[in-house]
Amino acid sequence: MKILVTAGGTSEKIDDVRHITNHSTGRLGKEIAEQFAQLPGTEVLYLCGIHAVRPKMENIQIIPVTSVRHLERTVKKILTTETIEAVIHSMAVSDYQVAALVDTDQWIHSLSTQLVNQENVAEIEKIIAKNSTQHTAASVTAEKKISSKTENLTLFLEQSPKVISKIKKWQPETHLFGFKLLVGVTTAELKKVAFTLLQKNQCDFVFANDLETITQDTHPGILIDKAGNTYPCTTKKEIAATIVAQFLHVKEGS
Amino acid sequence: MKILVTAGGTSEKIDDVRHITNHSTGRLGKEIAEQFAQLPGTEVLYLCGIHAVRPKMENIQIIPVTSVRHLERTVKKILTTETIEAVIHSMAVSDYQVAALVDTDQWIHSLSTQLVNQENVAEIEKIIAKNSTQHTAASVTAEKKISSKTENLTLFLEQSPKVISKIKKWQPETHLFGFKLLVGVTTAELKKVAFTLLQKNQCDFVFANDLETITQDTHPGILIDKAGNTYPCTTKKEIAATIVAQFLHVKEGS
Repeated sequence: MKILVTAGGTSEKIDDVRHITNHSTGRLGKEIAEQFAQLPGTEVLYLCGIHAVRPKMENIQIIPVTSVRHLERTVKKILTTETIEAVIHSMAVSDYQVAALVDTDQWIHSLSTQLVNQENVAEIEKIIAKNSTQHTAASVTAEKKISSKTENLTLFLEQSPKVISKIKKWQPETHLFGFKLLVGVTTAELKKVAFTLLQKNQCDFVFANDLETITQDTHPGILIDKAGNTYPCTTKKEIAATIVAQFLHVKEGS
Repeated sequence: MKILVTAGGTSEKIDDVRHITNHSTGRLGKEIAEQFAQLPGTEVLYLCGIHAVRPKMENIQIIPVTSVRHLERTVKKILTTETIEAVIHSMAVSDYQVAALVDTDQWIHSLSTQLVNQENVAEIEKIIAKNSTQHTAASVTAEKKISSKTENLTLFLEQSPKVISKIKKWQPETHLFGFKLLVGVTTAELKKVAFTLLQKNQCDFVFANDLETITQDTHPGILIDKAGNTYPCTTKKEIAATIVAQFLHVKEGS
């Protein structure tokens, strides 16, 4: 059987040398991939960010991805052409991608000239909004590297595609494990947000964790299932073992 | 003697999980640090970005840095308290840091209400500019992680401190090697930009290279000195050897 594990973080290009990334190491995803790879007759596809740690096992195939769009294309291709028993989507996917990058002083100037004598608030809003969206991605890629002489830059960000919401559409029978990272919340809030994510994206399980409680050696969090049952974990090894065990359990039942 | 090598890339925080980084690996800086560390009686301070590769030698001290401000504080502390024979500043330092991060729709709305009936272009420009700068860094750090529900975000970037311009002010006697990475330029342009950087920041040498010509195995570029002499290199090993040789040469002469 084939298992798809995503790990590490995405990387959104600003220009040839600058990117928006997150510092996800991929250590959790690597642990999960390795534990799945120990199941007999299993092949693991490991989709990972460029800085992510990489497992080294013969039956784990490494597939590096960069941006959210690149991730989306890659996952879609796999799920629409192969049978994947489970998708463990632990990658930290950027919620935003670059819509435009512009010289702040230049766009403020061009905007102001369009606003003279404009009295209608709705009209003014429209003009400003149009100015902030008309700088399409093309204006970003046009320049290979932003000249460092520009004093101020404005980076317009838009929501990136929600890959997790499409997984069950591409392959309804797969077992989907979602992940949610929050910062400084209560356990009750963690469970609530995880369960909302699970329902919204038709996940079979969601693992929820809090950045503030993760250390080098411990990784506390809760795996939650469709019935609302929770499985608390304290280390990456335990998280991986719980995910593998729950997958085998629901697979037998299905 | 002590040598300071900076390597890898800086990382500007957007919020607790998002950062603006560049993908500099630190491989060139590592090679330079290792070759300096082979000189008898030498201690190397290796200041590196969090994703940079790290040399493993007893006389190389690893000092990780994150943002440009963090780099600035760290280099200043070293150069104002210790005698450093040479600074090889190969780190890819972000030209920009985050000034503010705001909900695009919210700020466009609040801005538009201030502009109603305003007829004076200069006044309009002032209001827009004020709106785009008043969102201080505080508004960024206030939220630990941006809620992914916000549809559009505007990230205002401002120039970060130019660390290289301060090195000779902190320690005038050190030998300073600057680096310049360009994208898709001619050799003449590369030399011109490198020499301008050298003069502007009182560098003793600048190594200039072009992102488009760097591959896994080759790293072409030119080391240029104050007299305008150029030393072409084709690999990371050769760049490091040329820098060490030129340092020893000017040190003997001084």
